[in-house]
Amino acid sequence: MIDHYPSRQTDRASLLPRLDPVVHGTWTPQAPLTQEQSRFFDENGYLVLENQFDAAEIAALQAEAATLLAHPAGLKPETVITERNSKEVRSIFEIHRQNAMLAWLAADARLSEVARYLLADDVYIHQSRLNYKPGFQGKEFYWHSDFETWHVEDGMPRMRALSMSILLARNTPHNGPLMLIPGSHKEYLTCVGETPDDHYKSSLKKQEYGVPDEDSLADLANRHGIVAPTGEPGTVVIFDCNIMHGSNGNITPFPRANAFLVYNALSNRLEKPFGPATPRPDFIAARKDIEPVRPMAGPLKRRAA
Amino acid sequence: MIDHYPSRQTDRASLLPRLDPVVHGTWTPQAPLTQEQSRFFDENGYLVLENQFDAAEIAALQAEAATLLAHPAGLKPETVITERNSKEVRSIFEIHRQNAMLAWLAADARLSEVARYLLADDVYIHQSRLNYKPGFQGKEFYWHSDFETWHVEDGMPRMRALSMSILLARNTPHNGPLMLIPGSHKEYLTCVGETPDDHYKSSLKKQEYGVPDEDSLADLANRHGIVAPTGEPGTVVIFDCNIMHGSNGNITPFPRANAFLVYNALSNRLEKPFGPATPRPDFIAARKDIEPVRPMAGPLKRRAA
Repeated sequence: MIDHYPSRQTDRASLLPRLDPVVHGTWTPQAPLTQEQSRFFDENGYLVLENQFDAAEIAALQAEAATLLAHPAGLKPETVITERNSKEVRSIFEIHRQNAMLAWLAADARLSEVARYLLADDVYIHQSRLNYKPGFQGKEFYWHSDFETWHVEDGMPRMRALSMSILLARNTPHNGPLMLIPGSHKEYLTCVGETPDDHYKSSLKKQEYGVPDEDSLADLANRHGIVAPTGEPGTVVIFDCNIMHGSNGNITPFPRANAFLVYNALSNRLEKPFGPATPRPDFIAARKDIEPVRPMAGPLKRRAA
Repeated sequence: MIDHYPSRQTDRASLLPRLDPVVHGTWTPQAPLTQEQSRFFDENGYLVLENQFDAAEIAALQAEAATLLAHPAGLKPETVITERNSKEVRSIFEIHRQNAMLAWLAADARLSEVARYLLADDVYIHQSRLNYKPGFQGKEFYWHSDFETWHVEDGMPRMRALSMSILLARNTPHNGPLMLIPGSHKEYLTCVGETPDDHYKSSLKKQEYGVPDEDSLADLANRHGIVAPTGEPGTVVIFDCNIMHGSNGNITPFPRANAFLVYNALSNRLEKPFGPATPRPDFIAARKDIEPVRPMAGPLKRRAA
């Protein structure tokens, strides 16, 4: 298969053009976004949706997440990622396959129909997780394009995927919120060097390969600026698979938490990785037993598994 | 001498009342602050002054700082502090005694008269430094009250000192700006444990003793909130010696830099430390050859030493 987005193959970084649309669908009045929202996402590579969920739904989601993070005992051990230097749970992967309420969240029409419109295809969950970023000692997450990793390490062919972060705690400017470089999604910044096998085991805690170079990051940030959407629990931040993003550490007492869903177009399923010989495991990058999301209407509730 | 602010003496933290005024002066129309500014500082423990310096003065100050940080060769070696894990210069201490322009800055009437009003006394420079916090890898600085350290480690008797940070680079919400807990200056949070001798050598890079406990920090932040003043180069952020403050790390490409001056009331000169037997060296906490600042009018320029 042709590699349209080569990266980690030379010792020099390049800014290559994006070859794929950002909004794959054609807007009509029936679309689940307004025309203005659709344009905003196209131009900026992200979009914030408020008031998608009511207070009871948000409370239920927070309660479910708190239970899972505090008692991850029933989950597949490899999907539970702890903070560097502590046993505190930082992320639980493949959560939509391990928990009924999170499966429903991923299918919820208020989210999945937006993904189906933007990607103009049936969609499936490429990756899901619950993230908990504690206060006081929360570590930074360095700048990266998700697509660069998903392409090189997972074999995602094209830019036809997006992420949704459903905030479960208040995001303020001070507690290490997601920072995005709006507009950076329209260029593809290649990274230098090669990817070692089994890189994912350390990269989930600290990224060392597939890291953008400082000169290119400065160029992108100087041209486009940096935004950090803030919001109350329940806010949904949608962002393109190729937007440059990261987050600072967090010394405030206020933790961050979110449910994180990556929707990929069914036609953009994973191939053989373009970098390492061995693909990452299924709980990080779904490859087996792919099923399209079937949009579900109705309120979000805690559910028996 | 009676220890009015005991800390690091027991295994439990306490919130003790502040025994000293915040604004020691009595406001009159001749004061160098408006009555509103004076009240704001009293209530919140910090104040932001914009437009104190003109563009030429700011450019001169930035140029002087850049030269010093890039070529610290002529400076006393112990006053030059490098970043953990690198040789990049993070701070230069005692800069007002090593550089003519910074000496003038400390004496500049637009700053020193404000200090003299708020402290209602002759003032001297307890500590001065140039700070440079690089982008991409800038490390956090954990929450602390300066006074707690100055009292325990340096023997500063009472709360009659303040800091001024003169921004030399733009502070945004994203590049790890100073965070303050407004109102926290009216309580004194004691820390647990003892201070080892020579603690300062490591504490300039990473604080390990005199660290506030998480429960008290959460209490303060929940009651008072957190602010992080942003501003263009030249902005002056004044803050009380006892306000709880810190800063997050900085993965953005945008460095932070400031000139930092601590004014202490002449009547509040250092005594024997209330903690360790040996006081910290003079370049961190001025004890010898104290001279009151003589306010100087006139524009700030680069000057021959």
